Amino acid sequence: MAHALRLARRGLGNVWPNPAVGCVLLRKGRIVGRGWTQPGGRPHAERMALDVAGDLARGATAYVTLEPCAHHGRTPPCAEGLVQSGVLRVVSALTDPDSRVAGRGHAILRDAGVEVVEGVMEAEARDLQAGFLSRITRGRPFVTLKLANSFDGRIATANGDSQWITGQAARAHVHALRAQHDAVLVGAGTARADRPRLNVRGIATPRQPVRVVLGGDIPGLPPEGAEFGPLWHLQGDPVAALAELADRGITRVFCEGGGVLAGSLLRAGLVDHLIGYTAGVVIGADGRPGTGPMDLPALSHAPRFRLIETRTIGGDLFHRWQAI
Amino acid sequence: MAHALRLARRGLGNVWPNPAVGCVLLRKGRIVGRGWTQPGGRPHAERMALDVAGDLARGATAYVTLEPCAHHGRTPPCAEGLVQSGVLRVVSALTDPDSRVAGRGHAILRDAGVEVVEGVMEAEARDLQAGFLSRITRGRPFVTLKLANSFDGRIATANGDSQWITGQAARAHVHALRAQHDAVLVGAGTARADRPRLNVRGIATPRQPVRVVLGGDIPGLPPEGAEFGPLWHLQGDPVAALAELADRGITRVFCEGGGVLAGSLLRAGLVDHLIGYTAGVVIGADGRPGTGPMDLPALSHAPRFRLIETRTIGGDLFHRWQAI
Repeated sequence: MAHALRLARRGLGNVWPNPAVGCVLLRKGRIVGRGWTQPGGRPHAERMALDVAGDLARGATAYVTLEPCAHHGRTPPCAEGLVQSGVLRVVSALTDPDSRVAGRGHAILRDAGVEVVEGVMEAEARDLQAGFLSRITRGRPFVTLKLANSFDGRIATANGDSQWITGQAARAHVHALRAQHDAVLVGAGTARADRPRLNVRGIATPRQPVRVVLGGDIPGLPPEGAEFGPLWHLQGDPVAALAELADRGITRVFCEGGGVLAGSLLRAGLVDHLIGYTAGVVIGADGRPGTGPMDLPALSHAPRFRLIETRTIGGDLFHRWQAI
Repeated sequence: MAHALRLARRGLGNVWPNPAVGCVLLRKGRIVGRGWTQPGGRPHAERMALDVAGDLARGATAYVTLEPCAHHGRTPPCAEGLVQSGVLRVVSALTDPDSRVAGRGHAILRDAGVEVVEGVMEAEARDLQAGFLSRITRGRPFVTLKLANSFDGRIATANGDSQWITGQAARAHVHALRAQHDAVLVGAGTARADRPRLNVRGIATPRQPVRVVLGGDIPGLPPEGAEFGPLWHLQGDPVAALAELADRGITRVFCEGGGVLAGSLLRAGLVDHLIGYTAGVVIGADGRPGTGPMDLPALSHAPRFRLIETRTIGGDLFHRWQAI
């Protein structure tokens, strides 16, 4: 299952609106097929693994990071595919909360005499598929907010000098994170001031993230193309905007500011993961803050996060926090 | 020598104006004496180790983290003590830059026929004795600035609510750091607003740090006593204040803010180590900043630091940076 989860990870950011699933077929102690959701969402992980295995799937055990689908879409359901291939046992991490599946994938398998084991490495699978689960169960994408700041929480000097606070390695790391998200979100103020490109550069990605600007139509951003994902301008408050993104199929959003948007997402409790890159530079209180005003009546109203990861990237401190 | 350095560490914060030295006496593969500078600076590490060893010092090798002293003060010089005890070999990490020693300790030993090896683990000894070295060679103490901030660099909400941003474990850790410093420094604004106690609580310390308030006479702070170190009110700019502290014998200063003093120390390039405790809470730009205005003309003028340590303390992120 750990192997299947690692395969599933390959799909993050390029399979929306589908979940990023991994599948490993094991027969007599040997891996006979491996699959993961392909860019754009098709083929599914199970289909890919079964195609690799061919006749060797007969009698095998399938490890899948999510319940196999049960509904006829563009392709026949994976649960039926597993049955037809002669798989004898399916080990799955998680029941699919999608109302079109919701246990029916497991039921199809059991009805056909396939042994089904559920809930293996469920916590890890929930983490990995948090975007898909959030879209289905909360009607909004999973939101990661990234802030790259000076030691004292600034993103530029008073006169706007911001190049560079974090180092080259941290900036490259941001591109890797963008590639794992379906959409990159910025506020209109930042889009207007910085004209950010918001695409993935320096690493290969099968699918550029959707660029989302919230709060105004900003001219001058590059049009969709080979190097740039779709460009969506949304209006309204963050809650409405995230609901709209979920409706359009987005499961994982990477917000890169600016401070005003960051502040309103935080105040509304919409940030699931908070990522900091802290540079060893101090700018002072007259510098520009990375987070906008939040108008908190008391400290007890401030959003709280639990530290889940920290390491150094280049000379900068990387830290990831999870909403409490 | 690593053992001697660990012993030396015990003296940090309670031996000023003396250096915190460690000494290990090794004879035929057995440790026959260990010593470290005692609270207040006397006895010296070598004297303590020799007293422990007694006759067993004859023929031993002494490992010392700093060149043994050569001048007659309140006690005879350690270099002579080592000779008289019959030590055959002295391994030392560092030449003492104090003009009263400056190689004469090593010379006394060599003149008496003792073999001397210098420069063993010199870099580590320089780190450990950075306060003493700074006082002698730069005429100012080694300065560590501590800032305990929210994720976005704030120390309170707009209306002043600050209890608590960091957790209990981080606050206890601050007391351990205070105990390793000769003096705790705050600006007059913070002293007036918070009436901080600035003593070491919750852990045993042989000597409470001197409390230094810069920029005004603040009434209402507790007088010196068993629980509180001396209270010094200093005037003038940070450069003059630090020179004054060095004159009075202080080697290691722990500055705990406020933001205005932190900003002026940073702008003047007077911060040697920068320590952050970052809490998983976001307060927003309307919160109170941990660092005052620095009036930087460009980012290239901002003080830069290299990350040298990071770990989690309770739920908070601890990070220590060294001036570049």
